Amino acid sequence: MIIVGELINGSRPAIGQAIVRRDAEVIIETARCQVQAGAQLLDINAGTGPDREAEDLVWLVDVVTGALSSVALCIDSPNPAAMKAGLERAGERGALINSITAERKRVETFLPFIQTHSCQVIALCMNEGGIPKEARQRLRIAEDLVETLTAKGLAPGRIFLDPLVCPISVDAQAGRTAMETTRLIKETLPGVRTICGLSNISFGLPQRRLLNRNFLSAMIAAGLDAAILDPTDTGLMANLAATQALLGFDENCMGYIGAAREGTLS
Amino acid sequence: MIIVGELINGSRPAIGQAIVRRDAEVIIETARCQVQAGAQLLDINAGTGPDREAEDLVWLVDVVTGALSSVALCIDSPNPAAMKAGLERAGERGALINSITAERKRVETFLPFIQTHSCQVIALCMNEGGIPKEARQRLRIAEDLVETLTAKGLAPGRIFLDPLVCPISVDAQAGRTAMETTRLIKETLPGVRTICGLSNISFGLPQRRLLNRNFLSAMIAAGLDAAILDPTDTGLMANLAATQALLGFDENCMGYIGAAREGTLS
Repeated sequence: MIIVGELINGSRPAIGQAIVRRDAEVIIETARCQVQAGAQLLDINAGTGPDREAEDLVWLVDVVTGALSSVALCIDSPNPAAMKAGLERAGERGALINSITAERKRVETFLPFIQTHSCQVIALCMNEGGIPKEARQRLRIAEDLVETLTAKGLAPGRIFLDPLVCPISVDAQAGRTAMETTRLIKETLPGVRTICGLSNISFGLPQRRLLNRNFLSAMIAAGLDAAILDPTDTGLMANLAATQALLGFDENCMGYIGAAREGTLS
Repeated sequence: MIIVGELINGSRPAIGQAIVRRDAEVIIETARCQVQAGAQLLDINAGTGPDREAEDLVWLVDVVTGALSSVALCIDSPNPAAMKAGLERAGERGALINSITAERKRVETFLPFIQTHSCQVIALCMNEGGIPKEARQRLRIAEDLVETLTAKGLAPGRIFLDPLVCPISVDAQAGRTAMETTRLIKETLPGVRTICGLSNISFGLPQRRLLNRNFLSAMIAAGLDAAILDPTDTGLMANLAATQALLGFDENCMGYIGAAREGTLS
């Protein structure tokens, strides 16, 4: 299971303020605690306006790469210019692009960066028509995305498909649809991997962490390979350790037993 | 989701002693707290030797039906004589037999009780050869069981198939096999339902409740209709409420929101 830490995001007030004030310490501490908690990659999202985003993203990349010698970055922006600037600054540390969709214009804008860097890419199962309601429709978009990207020279292993997670408070079938889409992708598209952000599932409901951590277990059982999440949520990480053991991904349950000994499962 | 409370089991020391001492209060309290916590059925297992089991099971049935006016019972015994005695004493309250297997002798011994009562039956996916390692082999046994039982007049809706849960400490694939068997049964055998006991999954490992509750979520996502569990485990029941909402079984998340308001989700 690949864990992408989600906490360096300018839409979070502490991070947004740190970006404005160029307070590197807050960013470095947020990066360090996520890596210590088990994140293999860190999502970097400035979340600022189009006029400032490229500059802010470059600053974030500089701060994190300067302080942590080896963690890989997931450059997160809807803005092609900011994405390009952040990715170029990250160099070899820019491991993952978050994200493209099947919208033709978006694919065409982002493809040159993806082709010239060795990075991997998150591709959302949506297109000009928005997010389809049914899992099989999302699978069709996933198939189109993989066909387009592999035709341009990307190996399937560089593609992370995001089945898309909508709130169950809006659509009661949203969780089931995300699980089913994940299962269909893993069955139908060998070699590509799956990723999602968890927390959207619980939008508008109480005790969101309880829903997020159960959703993670169900999504891993459906075939999820990577998740964008808060690795400092100890209940979530305990569930992750338990689920890895339950699914046979944790040889002799050694990871689980080790975590229990270290007292990190409660 | 049908919840069968597992706590009235003579192999638990407090219950074993209460059976020996004919201490009805302990049994009644154990029954009441499970019903209050959400159990629709109570498993009744004397767990005593063959010379005493029928008498002990009848006493347990009398105590529980005398104290609780409506809860249904799951009569749990490997011993045909005890099962017959317990089931006859329970009358209309004897809703479920726990359990038969595909072993021919066992089926032939138990079938007459099942046919003469209106009860439902738990059928384990094992036969004379033991428990198959592969999910597809367990499915074949499930198909045989359903064919045999329906040929004897049982409607599919009276059959609860148990995919069988072995410890992941012994076989790392045991959790995945149980999930896959459940999924195959639900795909292949319309009308029959699935049930399992949870706690065997975590045998031999630390922090068993953490594994049990994550396993419940994954099994429900795979299609589990009923579970034999400890309904007084609040973490487990919180996970159950979250999973029902995540899978779209909880209309407008009203059950989940109500549980959050009542403070039962932590």
